Amino acid sequence: MQTEDEEFNNHKKNALVKLEDAMKSHKVDTLVIPLLEKINSTSDYFTTSSCAGRIVVLQLPEIGNKKKAVFLGRWHRTVNVEEVSEALDSYNEGQVWLLTQPPIFHIGCKNIVAANELMKIGISNGFKHSGIRSISSQITVELQSTERMDIPLGSKNTLVIEKEIIPFFVDMANTSITRAQDKLTRLQKHIEEKLN
Amino acid sequence: MQTEDEEFNNHKKNALVKLEDAMKSHKVDTLVIPLLEKINSTSDYFTTSSCAGRIVVLQLPEIGNKKKAVFLGRWHRTVNVEEVSEALDSYNEGQVWLLTQPPIFHIGCKNIVAANELMKIGISNGFKHSGIRSISSQITVELQSTERMDIPLGSKNTLVIEKEIIPFFVDMANTSITRAQDKLTRLQKHIEEKLN
Repeated sequence: MQTEDEEFNNHKKNALVKLEDAMKSHKVDTLVIPLLEKINSTSDYFTTSSCAGRIVVLQLPEIGNKKKAVFLGRWHRTVNVEEVSEALDSYNEGQVWLLTQPPIFHIGCKNIVAANELMKIGISNGFKHSGIRSISSQITVELQSTERMDIPLGSKNTLVIEKEIIPFFVDMANTSITRAQDKLTRLQKHIEEKLN
Repeated sequence: MQTEDEEFNNHKKNALVKLEDAMKSHKVDTLVIPLLEKINSTSDYFTTSSCAGRIVVLQLPEIGNKKKAVFLGRWHRTVNVEEVSEALDSYNEGQVWLLTQPPIFHIGCKNIVAANELMKIGISNGFKHSGIRSISSQITVELQSTERMDIPLGSKNTLVIEKEIIPFFVDMANTSITRAQDKLTRLQKHIEEKLN
């Protein structure tokens, strides 16, 4: 039978192999790599997934049906009106939404004390939607910031909004993603200082 | 020194007094009262806050500045176009947003095992943003569903969207809140069955 420490170390080993593969195939946002490396250098934590925050044009059959969702556009940075308009040109089924999603991290923790410490660092640095998301086979903390937009733009295969409004939504999305990525820098600084 | 059980019982007692006061002054959504009563009748849990889900017209100085936000309209039910338009008529400063916020509950738990059980019931009944939000002086689980809309409608004291688009956004908001409240019924049913 494994001790809890051995189990944690095995989970961590597997997670690091997966991360290395993902980095090799450029599936990890470069913006978060220093933070992931810092977390993975500690003895009590390892990362299992991450996103630096993004702006998305998403087509889906109906509200909440994310399984059949299709990304028409996806950017981990600010966008321009042409990019979003171009993504909307390929909308052809169901609904279409413009989303801003905040930075998010899932982090395996050695024990509940370590999980609590990490959650508190997140919450005090603007990642206010942080919490312990699982304590079954592995203790996982989610760190999530709060900036989001969820705007329906079309329904029943038809773009309902006028194209003239897109620059306004793009401007708001860019403000939102910039703000979120500033928070990411702040989180990284505090994690550098507080975790060993 | 208090035992953990005594501490939990004291927290619960205080929370129930607050809930009773809130109910007397009609500050609790009637839709969630049966669920709150069920949770509070168990030995391992008590509710500290709740919302049945709502549609909101919110004025705020800038993105993310919720401290200075003003509710121009707030409904725990489906809305009509006239109600939303009327709320927008009183918009006079900063930005204005139309939001749909999902049902949310904060629940004190006797121990980490009880917290884990409740979190699992939430996640398996569509409350997928559930997690343990605090384990310091009190273990608190947040149960939260996923339906949301966050639509900017105006900025710099000016309504940017055309009024013609409001019926579309209202229709989407109503679909979203109806879906969320259906999930609430499902959650209630499972909590009735599984918690004692």
